[in-house]
Amino acid sequence: MSFDGILSGATQELRRGTIVLACLLLLRRPGYGYALIEDLGRLGFTVDANTLYPLLRRLESQGMLVSEWNTTESRPRKFYRTSPEGELLAHALLEDWMRIDASIRRLDVGDPR
Amino acid sequence: MSFDGILSGATQELRRGTIVLACLLLLRRPGYGYALIEDLGRLGFTVDANTLYPLLRRLESQGMLVSEWNTTESRPRKFYRTSPEGELLAHALLEDWMRIDASIRRLDVGDPR
Repeated sequence: MSFDGILSGATQELRRGTIVLACLLLLRRPGYGYALIEDLGRLGFTVDANTLYPLLRRLESQGMLVSEWNTTESRPRKFYRTSPEGELLAHALLEDWMRIDASIRRLDVGDPR
Repeated sequence: MSFDGILSGATQELRRGTIVLACLLLLRRPGYGYALIEDLGRLGFTVDANTLYPLLRRLESQGMLVSEWNTTESRPRKFYRTSPEGELLAHALLEDWMRIDASIRRLDVGDPR
């Protein structure tokens, strides 16, 4: 495998774990699937519908997101937003993120042990 | 699933993607598997031998790590260290990490779009 292939695989893995957190933060403002994919992409989190839609449904079934249909436009769209429980989850994940980030930066300056 | 269960799953996913980067940074100083698991655990990256050892072998086969046996101790141990190519990979992943981190923090203060 080429260096670029290895890098691309490792990069994807790095970003995959952050998709849930990114969705919870983005959906503090209600959003629907397609727009969310665009927002995530703009932030560097490339994710396709086949990955995102099941994730949104899972987060909803876990009570982390709530949804409602917007039928005022020509095409009905399901809008998701982060629930109060989802906000708690986002907070906890953010704290964890800050800890991981601190560990990574500490490792990078070479004082790991 | 309980909130704690959901959080624990999401946290594990968050950390999983960073294991490769953490290994590459840690192995700038040669280390062997078991000690590496301890170092990773101390930094909050819990990983078991069944996950780490195949990962180390994969990174070696990709040329990102080099290894040699240390036979001066009573028990021979395979020491890994990050190769020059692995250092390039670590740099590229770190840059990506900084970008992801910036995105997450921007999202958190609520100026995502």
